Amino acid sequence: MNGAESLVQSLAAAGMEACFANPGTSEMHIVEALERAPSIRCVLGLFEGVVTAAADGYARMAGKPAATLLHLGPGLANGIANLHNAHRARVPILNIVGQHPTHHLRYDAPLTSDIEALARPHSQWMKTSTSAVQLARDGMEGLAAASIPPGQIATLIAPADAAWSEGGEIARPQLVPCAPLASVEAIEQVASILRTGLPAAILLSGNALFGQGLRTAGRIASFTNAKLFAPYPITRLERGAGLPRVDRMPYNPEQATSTLKNFRYLILAGSRVPVSYFSYPGKSSIQVPETCEVHVLASEQQDCAAALEALSITLSTDKVPPSAEPAIEPGVPPGELTTVTLAKVIGTLLPENTIVIDESMTSGRSLMPETIGSRPHDFLTNTGGSIGIAMPLAVGTAVACPQRPVLCLSADGSGMYTLQALWTMAREGLNITTVILANNQYAVLKREFGGLGVGTPGPRAASLLEIGRPSIDWVSLAKGMGVPAMRTTSNEEFAQALKRGFDSGGPSLIEIQL
Amino acid sequence: MNGAESLVQSLAAAGMEACFANPGTSEMHIVEALERAPSIRCVLGLFEGVVTAAADGYARMAGKPAATLLHLGPGLANGIANLHNAHRARVPILNIVGQHPTHHLRYDAPLTSDIEALARPHSQWMKTSTSAVQLARDGMEGLAAASIPPGQIATLIAPADAAWSEGGEIARPQLVPCAPLASVEAIEQVASILRTGLPAAILLSGNALFGQGLRTAGRIASFTNAKLFAPYPITRLERGAGLPRVDRMPYNPEQATSTLKNFRYLILAGSRVPVSYFSYPGKSSIQVPETCEVHVLASEQQDCAAALEALSITLSTDKVPPSAEPAIEPGVPPGELTTVTLAKVIGTLLPENTIVIDESMTSGRSLMPETIGSRPHDFLTNTGGSIGIAMPLAVGTAVACPQRPVLCLSADGSGMYTLQALWTMAREGLNITTVILANNQYAVLKREFGGLGVGTPGPRAASLLEIGRPSIDWVSLAKGMGVPAMRTTSNEEFAQALKRGFDSGGPSLIEIQL
Repeated sequence: MNGAESLVQSLAAAGMEACFANPGTSEMHIVEALERAPSIRCVLGLFEGVVTAAADGYARMAGKPAATLLHLGPGLANGIANLHNAHRARVPILNIVGQHPTHHLRYDAPLTSDIEALARPHSQWMKTSTSAVQLARDGMEGLAAASIPPGQIATLIAPADAAWSEGGEIARPQLVPCAPLASVEAIEQVASILRTGLPAAILLSGNALFGQGLRTAGRIASFTNAKLFAPYPITRLERGAGLPRVDRMPYNPEQATSTLKNFRYLILAGSRVPVSYFSYPGKSSIQVPETCEVHVLASEQQDCAAALEALSITLSTDKVPPSAEPAIEPGVPPGELTTVTLAKVIGTLLPENTIVIDESMTSGRSLMPETIGSRPHDFLTNTGGSIGIAMPLAVGTAVACPQRPVLCLSADGSGMYTLQALWTMAREGLNITTVILANNQYAVLKREFGGLGVGTPGPRAASLLEIGRPSIDWVSLAKGMGVPAMRTTSNEEFAQALKRGFDSGGPSLIEIQL
Repeated sequence: MNGAESLVQSLAAAGMEACFANPGTSEMHIVEALERAPSIRCVLGLFEGVVTAAADGYARMAGKPAATLLHLGPGLANGIANLHNAHRARVPILNIVGQHPTHHLRYDAPLTSDIEALARPHSQWMKTSTSAVQLARDGMEGLAAASIPPGQIATLIAPADAAWSEGGEIARPQLVPCAPLASVEAIEQVASILRTGLPAAILLSGNALFGQGLRTAGRIASFTNAKLFAPYPITRLERGAGLPRVDRMPYNPEQATSTLKNFRYLILAGSRVPVSYFSYPGKSSIQVPETCEVHVLASEQQDCAAALEALSITLSTDKVPPSAEPAIEPGVPPGELTTVTLAKVIGTLLPENTIVIDESMTSGRSLMPETIGSRPHDFLTNTGGSIGIAMPLAVGTAVACPQRPVLCLSADGSGMYTLQALWTMAREGLNITTVILANNQYAVLKREFGGLGVGTPGPRAASLLEIGRPSIDWVSLAKGMGVPAMRTTSNEEFAQALKRGFDSGGPSLIEIQL
């Protein structure tokens, strides 16, 4: 068999079930080999930023890596911004990037570029395969590297001659080390802190934000009165009625610091010390006030859920029921849609088990408070600050969880970066209801303009922050890519459209002008 | 003044007239400074691949660099694929990429990444500025580096504190060296070759493909019977009735070799030895047959037009009139639109001085033969093989040449990578008629599948090469971004729509289903 066949068959045997792809000539032998791997779902994206974000969404919900298939340096480059986000989400992804055969590289043909240099900044593992016999082995090494907890980006560069040459051999999956455990000292110390009864915040990440880890955190919160927080960027948070309350750290640096001023202790469970996205003249990057003492329960690499479990046992909270939010239905208010009322409508109608993707930016500020008591759901956000992830991230989550509805909330500015994801939603018939919150501007930048002390933008500067001239007609854009869409102006209309979207079982788009 | 102000004012004073931008928080001080530089036209792109390709198009036609303004690593990353193309086009571009202040970098905030590592592969000059006083100086150094003939990509990384701190000083433009001249020996040798009268092909690039250089080449061709060629990737070629005939080298390696078999000599005037885009099992990468002797008149870095002028004088052809194509009007054929008839319609209606952007891929194969005798026009193609350049490249050319009509021909697959360019066309009211040649597939990949000896794709593989399920409705997509659009099915309809597009003086889009 050729190298391509051995790679694909080895990945299939190792349990890989999804390949998000935008291949080119150099990857045709791999495409051909995918023909005979029916257990791998191949999902085409019309732009590589869709491909990499979909792999991120898949990994967040499936808890295991998908493959991407990308065309040479430029194909990888188009996917880098969302690999940046995936890297910050700490999810596993195996990129497979085609390359010219070695003998062709010396001619510096038009599509030649330094793929390794482009891959390195966002790949924790990277290798250029050297032969057909190596290709599957390298693929298995990359898969194992990607799977190291909590998850890594691995990039396998596959020269076309390694793919097309005979001599490929099926390779076995490699062992993946478990996440290391937190130290007994760290657990004892945090336990003694929590026993003081002084105000404590626990900043959770990774597997502490869903499943057993979250419930354990809820038991600890319930027993000790510690408050649970998630960082502003959220890879995956399970929340809603009956689940422990986890508040999100504010984006705004002053608000974040002000929140932490209420606590004597900040305990990091898989999280880093919270820092601001951006630096502002004369202001600190660190959001923790000096009055708040920071302690590490578990690092980003350690098993957070296990650390919480150990802490729970140490505190003898393991029989305590976890804290649980009451069910709240905000109701559908009458009248015009606003950022507050749209959040109430969503909070009221959210079906159980929905995967909510939130890149609604400034228009989404009421979303979390209005959905805290909604039916239980997962909540996923942009993790790296590179906007343009919501719709393709939704694609990946829907492929990972075909039985669950997905609600994708995107700002208009963010949505335009990767709108091609709508086409993939239509092609794959994915159960995704996309809501575009259109305020016709990069509103966050207008705020930052003020926050940086630059004042109010003049007309020329403002023209770079406003996207409403011409106005973007999302109903037409969605229609152009095969997704049924409508514009809604009242809460009742929005509620109806949302219900129809959830009930349809397929993709739809709702535009809201704010 | 602050660093941002000094940078922007220095660029304006140095004659920079266009800035293609998609800024974020880190670039707000530069945006603010642009407010007071009315001689710089600021053009917003909703995606960075639009921004960099527009800068490429601008440079190809204006012959000088525009600036791009990009947000941190991810913003640059989104622009890399079209910087790859620009790099291959050998055009000047000055990228300005924001960066966190140095004191913020150590916190590894979500948007932090290794910008230098991402910039290096496609930048011939790169510098991270270290202070307000350095920023304008570095900008002038970058501008000069970009302007080194034939053109380079320069990337200035501007930390936010360098932009916002006081101490900026206006910097003067730096001297740019002229392109070196070809050696007397090379000119004498080529002259003696051409005097033999044996069949010779001259492969022209750079400034030999338009203006005085092209006319000189035409005189030489006319006098010596040498045939003029352009490489398959064309940065800018002036052609049409009354101009010298320049044939494009075929994409297909066998066809390219077969073309060159007709010649005893291949003379490179600013071109490289032609090589295949891709490598195929058992086939050579070099397209020149052994029977064809290669000689270099001028390298890529040397002044081609001057080398041709010197050659012309040596051959005493300077009084000979250049070769000139006769005017041909293919006429508008009756009936259904095909790849051949659409080219005839274009060949008939092309207004004088049109800038034709061609990324029509497999559907455009009749375009060059059917427009060889059209009214004089410039012809620009994808130069680096990273598809998704046509529409944003058109944006840049229209900004560079507001008095000239632009005809943008894009395949449907290519167009989807950077469709956001349509919005910029609408916002800026650019005189661009876009024609989408929709065959609902990555047809080139189906051919390559065969060319690589992989056979015919099965249904799973084919699904990664077909984009017609769901079909993409370009009329809706254009409408969604404010560009008037229609679908045409007959030659007469297409001719009418094309005329209306050219007459409108603004943007329009025509979809053709093939």
